[in-house]
Amino acid sequence: MSRAMAAELKIFPVGKIQKKSDGVFIYIYRKYQKALAGLEQFSHIHVLYWFDRNDTKKIRSILQVHPCNNKSNPLTGVFATHSPKRPNLIALSRCRILSISGTLIRIDDIDAFHGSPVIDIKSYFPYSEAESHVCTPKWERKKKESNGD
Amino acid sequence: MSRAMAAELKIFPVGKIQKKSDGVFIYIYRKYQKALAGLEQFSHIHVLYWFDRNDTKKIRSILQVHPCNNKSNPLTGVFATHSPKRPNLIALSRCRILSISGTLIRIDDIDAFHGSPVIDIKSYFPYSEAESHVCTPKWERKKKESNGD
Repeated sequence: MSRAMAAELKIFPVGKIQKKSDGVFIYIYRKYQKALAGLEQFSHIHVLYWFDRNDTKKIRSILQVHPCNNKSNPLTGVFATHSPKRPNLIALSRCRILSISGTLIRIDDIDAFHGSPVIDIKSYFPYSEAESHVCTPKWERKKKESNGD
Repeated sequence: MSRAMAAELKIFPVGKIQKKSDGVFIYIYRKYQKALAGLEQFSHIHVLYWFDRNDTKKIRSILQVHPCNNKSNPLTGVFATHSPKRPNLIALSRCRILSISGTLIRIDDIDAFHGSPVIDIKSYFPYSEAESHVCTPKWERKKKESNGD
């Protein structure tokens, strides 16, 4: 069977993160403003953004990390983590919408840097399946808030 | 303030969807196999894949759709939907892992085509916030399973 790898795909930033003294915002470029219509009816969004500070060939070749930057956690494949070191530097965060004004979405917070490129926004629908059926490893259950891997 | 739009970003498929008579699989390319280590400890993953059949300039310029392909739903910005028509053709699905063998992850199902490029996998951690605080519009609450917008 052919296992030919597909060619590269192109994504274009649709906005960027703005962390300012008066709050945390997603600034959407004007050409995409129409894509926000109706978003005010949702309480939450999934924000996809880009770990732009890690966009080097070397970091994108890292396949395993110690979760939460803690060496006592087992070396783990990046697909089993939310590490900012991964082949495609896509970050996924769920955020609460506080307000929307023009091209600015004010959110509660996001674990991103000021200026990080935003690549997509998806309205958040709760999963119907009971969360109690979800299993995670010990390192995930014991971790608190972490900005690391 | 400068609103210069960032340059395009490059993503590389890390695998592809395989829909076969014996199940639904994510085939990860061998060069990324190490990134799967530890994933077997999770019950669920977020799968990011590419709506490759929509990768045209025309479709990527669509900013509003009728959700669920239902004209009676209000014209809505694609960022307020999960439409496969959007500027960056990134799809996000939560899937249950049934088994992992080498580079093959068998999952319950995914609303993707056979052959769709997979661009990232993230282990799924439940959100701590009560889902009851989530708000969605009427068209979302009344929809049933839909493959549309």
